[in-house]
Amino acid sequence: MAVRVEPTFPRPLLAPEAPCGQAMRFDEPLPLDCGQTLAPFTLAYMTYGELNAKRSNAVLICHALSGDQFVTGIHPVTGRRGWWPLMVGPGKPIDTERYFVICANVIGGCMGSTGPPDFDPATGKRFATDFPVVTVRDMVHAQAMLLGALGIERVLSVTGGSMGGMQALQWVATYPERVVSAMPLATSARHTAQNIALHEVGRQAIMTDPDWRGGRYLEQGVSPKRGLSVARMIAHISYLSETALAQKFGRALQDRAALSYGFGPDFQVENYLHHQGSTFVERFDANAYLYITRAMDYFDLAAEYGGDLKTAFAKARAGFLCVSFTSDWLFPTAENQLIAEAAAAAGCPAEFREIVSDRGHDAFLLDEPELFATVRHFLDSVAAEQGL
Amino acid sequence: MAVRVEPTFPRPLLAPEAPCGQAMRFDEPLPLDCGQTLAPFTLAYMTYGELNAKRSNAVLICHALSGDQFVTGIHPVTGRRGWWPLMVGPGKPIDTERYFVICANVIGGCMGSTGPPDFDPATGKRFATDFPVVTVRDMVHAQAMLLGALGIERVLSVTGGSMGGMQALQWVATYPERVVSAMPLATSARHTAQNIALHEVGRQAIMTDPDWRGGRYLEQGVSPKRGLSVARMIAHISYLSETALAQKFGRALQDRAALSYGFGPDFQVENYLHHQGSTFVERFDANAYLYITRAMDYFDLAAEYGGDLKTAFAKARAGFLCVSFTSDWLFPTAENQLIAEAAAAAGCPAEFREIVSDRGHDAFLLDEPELFATVRHFLDSVAAEQGL
Repeated sequence: MAVRVEPTFPRPLLAPEAPCGQAMRFDEPLPLDCGQTLAPFTLAYMTYGELNAKRSNAVLICHALSGDQFVTGIHPVTGRRGWWPLMVGPGKPIDTERYFVICANVIGGCMGSTGPPDFDPATGKRFATDFPVVTVRDMVHAQAMLLGALGIERVLSVTGGSMGGMQALQWVATYPERVVSAMPLATSARHTAQNIALHEVGRQAIMTDPDWRGGRYLEQGVSPKRGLSVARMIAHISYLSETALAQKFGRALQDRAALSYGFGPDFQVENYLHHQGSTFVERFDANAYLYITRAMDYFDLAAEYGGDLKTAFAKARAGFLCVSFTSDWLFPTAENQLIAEAAAAAGCPAEFREIVSDRGHDAFLLDEPELFATVRHFLDSVAAEQGL
Repeated sequence: MAVRVEPTFPRPLLAPEAPCGQAMRFDEPLPLDCGQTLAPFTLAYMTYGELNAKRSNAVLICHALSGDQFVTGIHPVTGRRGWWPLMVGPGKPIDTERYFVICANVIGGCMGSTGPPDFDPATGKRFATDFPVVTVRDMVHAQAMLLGALGIERVLSVTGGSMGGMQALQWVATYPERVVSAMPLATSARHTAQNIALHEVGRQAIMTDPDWRGGRYLEQGVSPKRGLSVARMIAHISYLSETALAQKFGRALQDRAALSYGFGPDFQVENYLHHQGSTFVERFDANAYLYITRAMDYFDLAAEYGGDLKTAFAKARAGFLCVSFTSDWLFPTAENQLIAEAAAAAGCPAEFREIVSDRGHDAFLLDEPELFATVRHFLDSVAAEQGL
């Protein structure tokens, strides 16, 4: 049974006037890939636009590692903008005057959906590291239950970048009859060794912070902010490109005329990283970071289907739009091309577009006119085919 | 005045039978770029081969961030091999039957040369973070004093990869009359924003480890091993390439048949990184890591010469061999090419070679036949021109 509940957030609202969205509590258990179940569980979500009478204009957006359900508008908890305001909104490529957009915080997250900071009803204590390890498939399974509860049988499109793209691929594989089209952006059908390595360093930074307290920091009134900040800094470097960093900062100094011959942030790029680290720890839970990175590491869609990605899409009829960016070294063109090739081999209409950009992996979040034009054209074509 | 002293090492010898090299103490002050001076100071160094009667066959090797003077043979402190055994030795490209090889631990290091773990004679306490911030130029200045004390007026070649290459470039610029040739490998004439960023994350990992104790850990009987290990793991990822990691590990699991749904090292690549981190902390000093990374960050050779790299080489007559590796994303081909172009523009004979390799930045340390053939041919040509 699904019950609408008030969304609750682990942190005070910095923008109480901003919409907080909705939440749905499910009393039926969510079976997880790890063998455990989660019950009850809650998904916090936002919707933008209106569902049409035929319930045929839904676009499901899946967020990335550090994202959440607040795609656009003001984020009630951070007081800042959502993460995809240039892509989603009235008149935007994913046009909320035409489409009904849904985005849910992932299971294992920390923005209102059930995750490690929550209390385990079985013990009355916080889950912390007793939270079961979840997978991208578990995240998608929970989203499918949410869409079911909302009476949405099929989505016109499922999209997202990075881990959001992984979820889009998992949707097509697991629920082929429920997906009209998919737009996996800057992603991969399997997390590579380099990406696992980068995640592991971030996790080690968190887990070696003594304020992590074996994961039980919230009960002890502390927080592994230093470790989480280092993890975020590592990740942030990987989201950019050498060219982007050179153009944005180069070797420019921060608020000083000469080198200080010390270990403070002499360089603007150092100051920028510190800022990225310190703002992140104010909005993100360290354990959620562990769990979500692990879900990405575990993602290997072909492995679920005997090692052949084409087989994962065998029952799919979705049209694919696969997009990569030239300077994205985390989810490079080759990984995205493999997806399009497998989809085409499975008989799905698949379009692949490599966009020239200096901005690295983050390009999918930024002002990239070719991305916007490509998504707009693809989505409008899918809508037209569906008689919208 | 330079005095030969016994080299002393901060850690017990694991291979007491291996040669420990020599050390030279200088009582005359070393003026540093930061404005301070260091006096007395010691350089610990190794030599391989014999200096000829004309003192014209010296090859100076400069080590990288995590290297030291033990280029080849067994390292007396770690008990493992030196860092460049395939390049240096009898019959090797830098042939110790023909050339007299010298390599000194850098100022600021932790393998016998004066650095942060040492005692400050002015206070009787360890320098720790009171050690002055040193630069690549300071390192080279100290090496020049060492060569002077050894009666070596000119080097047939100065070489090194990464920070070793930076020192080679600094040698040509600062002591143009003392350098017959230079072989800067996998390096840059300026540390880029991305590289500064990666270093800063490593430093933050160290400095936020509570066992760092504001740098005074040795006095307090602790060591920021966790932070240093995280720093090493970050760095190690950057020394490899995505392809190398994919080929070496891919998504292979470590000693298990299935995912554990936990945070242990499920994947081989995680286990490998942990090993890299834990072995590094046994041989390296955390403060030295801070100082040496800072020296690299500060390196910008053109900036010393009005912003024009060509001017840095204006007085040089050295022949250059510049080498890059296709998959090196820390010190990419373009950075190495800039060096060769500036040297050529300054009138120096400059050869540039990009070597196809999947192994990333670490390629300069590995079995790369084209590198060996290139270095051998270049060095033998220089020797022949010098009548050796």
